[in-house]
Amino acid sequence: MSIDINCDLGEGFGDYRMGDDSSLMSFITSANIACGFHAGDFMTMRRTVLLCLDSCVSIGAHPGYPDMQGFGRRSMNFSPEEIYSMVLFQVGALKSITEAEGGWLRHIKPHGALYNDAAVNRDKALAIAEAVRKAGDDLILLCLAGSAMEDAAAKAGIPFALEAFADRQYDSSGKLVPRSVKDAVIHLPAVCAARTMTMVKDKKVMSIDGKFVAINPDSVCVHGDTEEAINIASAIRIALEAEGIEVKPFKGRRQR
Amino acid sequence: MSIDINCDLGEGFGDYRMGDDSSLMSFITSANIACGFHAGDFMTMRRTVLLCLDSCVSIGAHPGYPDMQGFGRRSMNFSPEEIYSMVLFQVGALKSITEAEGGWLRHIKPHGALYNDAAVNRDKALAIAEAVRKAGDDLILLCLAGSAMEDAAAKAGIPFALEAFADRQYDSSGKLVPRSVKDAVIHLPAVCAARTMTMVKDKKVMSIDGKFVAINPDSVCVHGDTEEAINIASAIRIALEAEGIEVKPFKGRRQR
Amino acid sequence: MSIDINCDLGEGFGDYRMGDDSSLMSFITSANIACGFHAGDFMTMRRTVLLCLDSCVSIGAHPGYPDMQGFGRRSMNFSPEEIYSMVLFQVGALKSITEAEGGWLRHIKPHGALYNDAAVNRDKALAIAEAVRKAGDDLILLCLAGSAMEDAAAKAGIPFALEAFADRQYDSSGKLVPRSVKDAVIHLPAVCAARTMTMVKDKKVMSIDGKFVAINPDSVCVHGDTEEAINIASAIRIALEAEGIEVKPFKGRRQR
Amino acid sequence: MSIDINCDLGEGFGDYRMGDDSSLMSFITSANIACGFHAGDFMTMRRTVLLCLDSCVSIGAHPGYPDMQGFGRRSMNFSPEEIYSMVLFQVGALKSITEAEGGWLRHIKPHGALYNDAAVNRDKALAIAEAVRKAGDDLILLCLAGSAMEDAAAKAGIPFALEAFADRQYDSSGKLVPRSVKDAVIHLPAVCAARTMTMVKDKKVMSIDGKFVAINPDSVCVHGDTEEAINIASAIRIALEAEGIEVKPFKGRRQR
Repeated sequence: MSIDINCDLGEGFGDYRMGDDSSLMSFITSANIACGFHAGDFMTMRRTVLLCLDSCVSIGAHPGYPDMQGFGRRSMNFSPEEIYSMVLFQVGALKSITEAEGGWLRHIKPHGALYNDAAVNRDKALAIAEAVRKAGDDLILLCLAGSAMEDAAAKAGIPFALEAFADRQYDSSGKLVPRSVKDAVIHLPAVCAARTMTMVKDKKVMSIDGKFVAINPDSVCVHGDTEEAINIASAIRIALEAEGIEVKPFKGRRQR
Repeated sequence: MSIDINCDLGEGFGDYRMGDDSSLMSFITSANIACGFHAGDFMTMRRTVLLCLDSCVSIGAHPGYPDMQGFGRRSMNFSPEEIYSMVLFQVGALKSITEAEGGWLRHIKPHGALYNDAAVNRDKALAIAEAVRKAGDDLILLCLAGSAMEDAAAKAGIPFALEAFADRQYDSSGKLVPRSVKDAVIHLPAVCAARTMTMVKDKKVMSIDGKFVAINPDSVCVHGDTEEAINIASAIRIALEAEGIEVKPFKGRRQR
Repeated sequence: MSIDINCDLGEGFGDYRMGDDSSLMSFITSANIACGFHAGDFMTMRRTVLLCLDSCVSIGAHPGYPDMQGFGRRSMNFSPEEIYSMVLFQVGALKSITEAEGGWLRHIKPHGALYNDAAVNRDKALAIAEAVRKAGDDLILLCLAGSAMEDAAAKAGIPFALEAFADRQYDSSGKLVPRSVKDAVIHLPAVCAARTMTMVKDKKVMSIDGKFVAINPDSVCVHGDTEEAINIASAIRIALEAEGIEVKPFKGRRQR
Repeated sequence: MSIDINCDLGEGFGDYRMGDDSSLMSFITSANIACGFHAGDFMTMRRTVLLCLDSCVSIGAHPGYPDMQGFGRRSMNFSPEEIYSMVLFQVGALKSITEAEGGWLRHIKPHGALYNDAAVNRDKALAIAEAVRKAGDDLILLCLAGSAMEDAAAKAGIPFALEAFADRQYDSSGKLVPRSVKDAVIHLPAVCAARTMTMVKDKKVMSIDGKFVAINPDSVCVHGDTEEAINIASAIRIALEAEGIEVKPFKGRRQR
């Protein structure tokens, strides 16, 4: 029994910092590194890659919409062809920097509004999956369980991994409760750790209206840019290891 | 006896167009494609790659300073480490888009102020050469003959090719006469073609003060964004072929 | 009887050019100048202001969404408060450059997706109207007749002017037929001129399904970035003057 | 006897934060607000203006080079005409947002590399002074004492104010010792406060090699983006007030 812990990293820009990347290193096993569109730049990317290599954290690309002022969180009306090209651009940029330092790009996870749009829009999801397929052999698409992205990965024949959120409520159909809903985000580290444990060991999660929902994640996502980030990440890591669950990078699934 | 003709392409951005890329395709053998910093974007890059693949034009990356408003022509005070990372970023982005379409990235030629700075600054030239070395096996650095970039390529042990300018005057030491000097730029297609012929066949060029200077280019650069661009490119191509000189992509040299 | 002819100008960026601003100068009476978000930059803006001052063309600001790669044509999910601030920013920038050259900023017309969003969204329209009210005394909001922007201008108590499109089809309710519909855009200069004449003299326009619809524009918009732009603008101007209709900048209406 | 304390504010961008603007409010009397080129955006600018209005802090524009990745600290080769236009653009944008909220733009202080370039380059300094003259009546240029900017302000006939740095060493000619020199920056709040006091009361400062140099500042600059920022600002403010020196916005000087 094993699980991966992933986190968005390298989300600074120039002199701007976002999150405490160094402190998170001891707790996570996969990093989603911003690629210069919603955050990140050529220097931040290299610094973050070196940090991951130092800490044996698996490296992934975190492409987003080209909207730094909005941190890639605003939906923008891009065509599938545009999404395909913008993902290739960003993944290629990070891959180049990663390989130059002796590293290896292992996965891709879309960011913010691109992630959300692709979770529900079949064509956008397919554009991303296609870009991942073209961007390199065996690149793994890290995506939301049950989303259009999971379907698209299967259809494109690429390996994928499914993530769950330790600090988010789910509804009884297994969907994430939007952040805008009261109490949709969980702030207590111990609760996040307990929920993660149930997801990993029992393959289920308690929904916001009190029903157990089946879930089988390959990775648990923790956030790096909140005040309680480090506390949540460490609580989860410690709890998992105390139970003898191995914390290590996910393997890619393939649709049978 | 053979020579390459290279040209900067894909220098539009969004709805903006620069130069008539399609028309140049029949005359050139290598394209330097802008990578989103001084010009170009993920869509323009892909469109230009497809154009090159259609026309069997060899594909190269054309990284520049991140200054689209100044078209990468303003010198900016970047450290060698910053130049190394920004070249890796841009080359990786184009490589990814190129390979996704079944193409192959063959060379790298810096743009504008980055090219000019690296032609005279040893540390900046080495940073570029090092990025080229890391960006992929056998990538060729296309550089100005006799520049710090040529030295850096030799020192880094990477293959390189030397370019000459058909439409520019040289001084008697073999250096380019700055554009700001009167008559430094040649506008007559027939003169450009004649000079190219002398460079290729006789390995020399007449300097602005009337002396022959030794030159031995692997490639002749033509510009795409001027009014006479197509006429110059076609005049050179036709003249070369009329003399039985093969026009084809350069091979990389290696310092013995 | 008089009418204004307005056109979007200054939509280049750095070395990029868009449209033939100089040639349009003799035909138009109001210019909507891009303010650096969807197009334009500090140099292009100044050059365009000087061009307008030279030609006695009335100067307006043309604020858009911050998306140069998409030319401001992609809808983005901005809050009314964000729209209010971004309009103030852009209008202030152009006003400053205009007044420095001895000119006078007279109107504001939103661009592209911002124009379209504000035409139907009450809150976004009010945010724009409020920004116009705060940006200077007597600034006129140039807006689509019958749109949410017209209502918002009335509600905010600011002067406004209504524009019609010489080269676009209307439906029988007086709304613009989307560009995506076949034949929604009219390319023949003579037809554009004839339709303008009917709008101005008879206060009506023939809809795409053959019914006359009431219309009473203060200004006719011509486009500057198409091949037929100059021909359409000149045909309209000549036709209007031949009929003795004065072509001059609009006056602002105020809701009674 | 009175003195102003100025500080750079509003240097965040989108979700990025820089410095603790709110905490500085009780200690400073003038704010230099970033205008979207080296830092800042339409939302950050408005938020910062509202903060200043709430705290009765005098509002100034802080224009910089268009290089957010480099935070405006890299010299870029702009012509005087380009500098003139970029200053007008940025000042106009902030003026518009300030006046919309009922505020009043009082001064302009260039940022980073633009400040440094204009301190020594006569033509760039004149371009800035000319932009300030055109940007509004009685706008005050806040500049380094003894710099080319002071001369340019005098020549352009605009009011100006001179600033000194509480946390920086001076050489015996009265010039700032570059940050790159060891111990050029002073980190101890008490020392900064003592030096400020000597500058204000005795019109002199001890140079790095131990000689007193005459200085007569209208304003003392404190930095907002360092760890000790708040401590230094408060130490200076408390020391000045303890000595009965009034801390209030500067008045503009005019060359007699």
